[in-house]
Amino acid sequence: MVRKMIKRHCGSILFFPILILTLLILTPQISADEGMWPLSELPRLNLKEKGLRMDPALIYDPARESLLYAVVQIGATGSFISADGLIITNHHVAFGSVVAASTPEKDYLKNGFLAKTRAEEIPAAGRTARITESFRDVSSEVLRVVRKNMSYAERTKAIEQQIKKIVAEAEKVNPGKRAEVAEMFPGKTYWLFLYTVLRDIRLVYVPPLAIGNFGGEEDNWMWPRHTGDFTLMRAYVAPDGKPAEYSEKNVPYKPRTFIRVNPEGASEGDFVFLLGYPGRTYRHLPASYISFEQNIRMPAVADWYEWQIKLMEEMSQASREVALRHDSRIKGLANTMKNYRGKLVGLRRLNYLAQRRQEETALQEFIQADPKRQALYGRVLPELEEIYADMGQEYSRVFVLDNLRRSVILFQNAMTVVEGVYERQKPDLERNAAYMDRNFNQTKQRLALNLKSNFYLPTDVAIFRELLKKALALPEELKIEALNQLVSAGGSPDEMVDKLFKSTKMDDYEFIKQTLEKKPDEIKRVDDSILKLALSLYPEYKKMEETNRARKGQMDELQAKLVDVRQEFLERQFIPDANGTLRLTYGRVEGYEPRDAVYYRPFTTVKGVIEKTTGKEPFDTPAALLQLISQKKFDGFINPALDTVSVCLLYSTDTTGGNSGSPILDADGRLVGVNFDRAWEATINDFTWSHRFSRSIGVDVRYILWILKEFAGADHLLEEMGVR
Amino acid sequence: MVRKMIKRHCGSILFFPILILTLLILTPQISADEGMWPLSELPRLNLKEKGLRMDPALIYDPARESLLYAVVQIGATGSFISADGLIITNHHVAFGSVVAASTPEKDYLKNGFLAKTRAEEIPAAGRTARITESFRDVSSEVLRVVRKNMSYAERTKAIEQQIKKIVAEAEKVNPGKRAEVAEMFPGKTYWLFLYTVLRDIRLVYVPPLAIGNFGGEEDNWMWPRHTGDFTLMRAYVAPDGKPAEYSEKNVPYKPRTFIRVNPEGASEGDFVFLLGYPGRTYRHLPASYISFEQNIRMPAVADWYEWQIKLMEEMSQASREVALRHDSRIKGLANTMKNYRGKLVGLRRLNYLAQRRQEETALQEFIQADPKRQALYGRVLPELEEIYADMGQEYSRVFVLDNLRRSVILFQNAMTVVEGVYERQKPDLERNAAYMDRNFNQTKQRLALNLKSNFYLPTDVAIFRELLKKALALPEELKIEALNQLVSAGGSPDEMVDKLFKSTKMDDYEFIKQTLEKKPDEIKRVDDSILKLALSLYPEYKKMEETNRARKGQMDELQAKLVDVRQEFLERQFIPDANGTLRLTYGRVEGYEPRDAVYYRPFTTVKGVIEKTTGKEPFDTPAALLQLISQKKFDGFINPALDTVSVCLLYSTDTTGGNSGSPILDADGRLVGVNFDRAWEATINDFTWSHRFSRSIGVDVRYILWILKEFAGADHLLEEMGVR
Repeated sequence: MVRKMIKRHCGSILFFPILILTLLILTPQISADEGMWPLSELPRLNLKEKGLRMDPALIYDPARESLLYAVVQIGATGSFISADGLIITNHHVAFGSVVAASTPEKDYLKNGFLAKTRAEEIPAAGRTARITESFRDVSSEVLRVVRKNMSYAERTKAIEQQIKKIVAEAEKVNPGKRAEVAEMFPGKTYWLFLYTVLRDIRLVYVPPLAIGNFGGEEDNWMWPRHTGDFTLMRAYVAPDGKPAEYSEKNVPYKPRTFIRVNPEGASEGDFVFLLGYPGRTYRHLPASYISFEQNIRMPAVADWYEWQIKLMEEMSQASREVALRHDSRIKGLANTMKNYRGKLVGLRRLNYLAQRRQEETALQEFIQADPKRQALYGRVLPELEEIYADMGQEYSRVFVLDNLRRSVILFQNAMTVVEGVYERQKPDLERNAAYMDRNFNQTKQRLALNLKSNFYLPTDVAIFRELLKKALALPEELKIEALNQLVSAGGSPDEMVDKLFKSTKMDDYEFIKQTLEKKPDEIKRVDDSILKLALSLYPEYKKMEETNRARKGQMDELQAKLVDVRQEFLERQFIPDANGTLRLTYGRVEGYEPRDAVYYRPFTTVKGVIEKTTGKEPFDTPAALLQLISQKKFDGFINPALDTVSVCLLYSTDTTGGNSGSPILDADGRLVGVNFDRAWEATINDFTWSHRFSRSIGVDVRYILWILKEFAGADHLLEEMGVR
Repeated sequence: MVRKMIKRHCGSILFFPILILTLLILTPQISADEGMWPLSELPRLNLKEKGLRMDPALIYDPARESLLYAVVQIGATGSFISADGLIITNHHVAFGSVVAASTPEKDYLKNGFLAKTRAEEIPAAGRTARITESFRDVSSEVLRVVRKNMSYAERTKAIEQQIKKIVAEAEKVNPGKRAEVAEMFPGKTYWLFLYTVLRDIRLVYVPPLAIGNFGGEEDNWMWPRHTGDFTLMRAYVAPDGKPAEYSEKNVPYKPRTFIRVNPEGASEGDFVFLLGYPGRTYRHLPASYISFEQNIRMPAVADWYEWQIKLMEEMSQASREVALRHDSRIKGLANTMKNYRGKLVGLRRLNYLAQRRQEETALQEFIQADPKRQALYGRVLPELEEIYADMGQEYSRVFVLDNLRRSVILFQNAMTVVEGVYERQKPDLERNAAYMDRNFNQTKQRLALNLKSNFYLPTDVAIFRELLKKALALPEELKIEALNQLVSAGGSPDEMVDKLFKSTKMDDYEFIKQTLEKKPDEIKRVDDSILKLALSLYPEYKKMEETNRARKGQMDELQAKLVDVRQEFLERQFIPDANGTLRLTYGRVEGYEPRDAVYYRPFTTVKGVIEKTTGKEPFDTPAALLQLISQKKFDGFINPALDTVSVCLLYSTDTTGGNSGSPILDADGRLVGVNFDRAWEATINDFTWSHRFSRSIGVDVRYILWILKEFAGADHLLEEMGVR
């Protein structure tokens, strides 16, 4: 089909240079390895032909002890690797639990943790592990409620309510299970998933931060990587085998099946596959969406985050205490910024937008060539184009409103108060989720914690000043009235912002909590400058919410049609975008060429740990580990091709956020590593998979076992996994 | 010998881990390819065995037309590539001449330049090309003047004067030639070189900046590289064949020999060698020197330059005009900073200091094992250690004085005035070079230009403030009295600096020029704050100068002994450090592994030019070049292994600054590229050559020829070179 498409355009002189460029750069990307496959689709894949040796049916067969039951959703992904419910996942997935279990005296985050006996295993507070039990297509049940004469907003609402009904019914029929309906193809395909939720999860082994998070932010999204990003936990259940909250009486969970560890690991070129819960991809959206992301939204956000990081780094020079208030904010901002920059580079290198535009020109020709297709699909692309054009046109305004709420903590608090007061007037089920009774306490706690951990007045003021500057520079038709009025009294914008922050109590949690209890007409009388501003901006936010809901309705309909006609045009059957449900992806252990003349080999080694070690965080390798390396205590864990212990590996599977902790399985379905990241260029996976760039990063099973045995002295865990 | 050394230490438990590490990391570095060989030493090298196919005698044989005569010193290095004096060198070597020849109307720097006929060739004002005619050892003549009872400072002075005499005599005997004595092994070996100096050099072809400097600062010191860093010039002489200043009547110079171009280029693994004029290396200095550089001087300078760059970047945001005043300063600072950071990384990765320390411990044992050696060399290492310990101890003070003069332009001007006034009182030959009659005008011109192009008051003030802060923080024994007195009157240091800059005219060139004409007691009466400060600091600078001269005398003596005993100990005959004289280095076209799991291939391609192109400087590839690439107009210039045009190449020769423009020669002595940089890790070449990291970067002859033919349409130049 690609050939067909190209032929069609060879007549057009305009396309010629783009075409050459596209071919020059893209040729290796045309490959069949794309895909985060729902398990139901596996029969479409001839996995045996790709390199699988085990019986493919044993990956997903509800009637048998298939691999499906060994994979859990545990924040991201984890898997059972022993008959006694031992779970392996990433250090960064378990991070919050490790922090929660640590005290200044017992700093498990910094020093690591090993339970020498089961009695020593520590509860990972609040953590759950979900096992996918079954799933089925409920599209017709969901879409049954859509009526032709509905407005787009009504359509969205009707689907939302129908889904709630289906879920409630499923949980009634399957007591003890959790039900969820997932949008597979928005507006088109919906599946009902049933999960078993294990609620007593405990920490078994955590490496020190300097191993589990070696390289920190600096190495994040990067190859070569030398991070021992793994952690062991264990699931417990009530003595009767049923899921239960933590209790001393609980016993280790016996999974229906678990994954065997292959201590010999993988070699370059080996077939591997992953099971996991990838979060979100956007592969079926139109070129107009890519254009919006590539040309408008991502560059603006990346620049803005970069600006904020710089600001916070400057503020942090004031004192260690001030620095602590910015640490986790900077980390979050940097993670997204680096991801976006990676995507922008990847998109440019692949010339992906031009490629998709070209495909859509051909698609539109295909549609117009047939009157029936024309009637059904003729307006799909133009209407999507219009929606994204609108979004692009108003983006500078949305940007200010969005980031005012996202980045200025006192304004965020004020908006929570205003929204909370209004939402809490509604019946519980009609409220925004944050204000429903079952979530309201958590919303308040999160606000208190944010204020306590992340708020620093000068940073808040500086960010507000910058956003106000942007607001005042908006063209007439996008002006935000309430912000313009701030400065209408005269005085420089900076002075007005300073004044605003002088007469607010939105930094006082007790005051916020009290105000949240008020009625709408009461809060109008509260004398608080930022609260008043939030009140006057509230209608803007409501309007935005409504616009988004209507847009979703319209896009769902268009999107569903686009998927239909593209499948017809490309003569392919699509795989649904990632949506947090269980998927399989396969590939090979292989390096790649990130840039002309640069080749990334698929394995790093302990030699690289030494090379990177500076003694300073995040490259502060424990002395005991350095010594083990220098003494070459590698027996039994050597990667024979490299004659040393390999630390991390690269492979060409198709992953995204949520795949963290996914087991890397060999052709026999045995564990050869644990997935934890993607290479920088592979951040484009959210838009497209490319054989040239799409590489995932995992920690090598040999490094995991070597650390457990030689560094941690956890022979009992190796034994439990059946290793020697 | 290395094996011997290691054996000696195996008994010592302390050395064990270091040894393991050293072996682990250093093994590939032990290789015979090190060396910037003086041509007289070539018989020691069996170049035929290394891969040379041509007759090695034809590289340097004064009796025959050997390659020696095809290589010129032209700022850095260049070479004749036609019988009519056509010279190829780097774009960055010719940079100043291109700028000087450009006008806003004819911007050859931005747009490039091609002389279609010889008549169109433009004089490269002030540029000369020197050909090495002969050289001989004059060590005994030089050292004849050293007497036992001399102080170290006297020793240095006596040698300096004797060298001046030898040079004067040689120039008398060889009219028209330029003579120079070079220190081969300081304090030990001195050679007299005779040069022919061609003084009418013209520009023939210059690629546009976006080709010749593609990648700019960002790619500087980096692989992968995609820079067409070459330029063609031509040497002219008087009609009688003698060197002459520019004249319309001059005719192209007929070199005794020229280098043939091999349009087929080199392949991976090929033997290559370079001839050129490398500037300075420090391979024979002791570990105490490496320690001083690695632990004290380089980190301090790199941090300080980084601070200055940040300051200047912030200042530059004021306006385009202000930015222009900082551009070239930032460029210079960044070049050094990146070089130092590279060296620090390389030294750490190679664990070089520990390796040298270990060698010296063994060397000291070797010395002490024999009473005669003990008597002769026993104090060499300890005394050098003491000197560098002293230098380290006083470095924070020297840093302030050095950088006050180096980085604060108005203070620099004031010091020039003070020093000039004092020096100009002396007989011409006894003055510091800058104030000798033949240089004094240039010194003043440089001052004026610096003031005009680079001075920006707020930057000067900010740098002074920072240095004053450092000065005030010095420990008691290192305090700089005159700076401390600045703040003794009360008032914050910042205020005092601001005040200082309010009552100075050191930004007024006419005033400076007048003041330079005054007598010592007259300038004491000039009412200028910064001049007064310079006057009060002048004795400090004089003292530093004296200390340095005495140190050089002492170190020369120690250094000469160290070379002797190390050669005996290592059973090797050393090659002198680079010192700006003609050298040969050989190696292979090969990639390298800069970090664990990363491999740099030895050729980049035009594909990479497209990948890097952003449209913005320094990645603003000319549209015509992009089109040639996309049209694949590569006929006749393809690198068969890559099936496209290769742009740059990597090879394991031993180079340093000054090798820029060196011809890359194949086994038959034909041109396959032009050297222009080193890879980042190879900045350690100044201290040591490492087979793992030492890679030089050149532009591929195929890219040069392709650019000339397809991009520039310079068929006549290809014809002149004998290419088709």
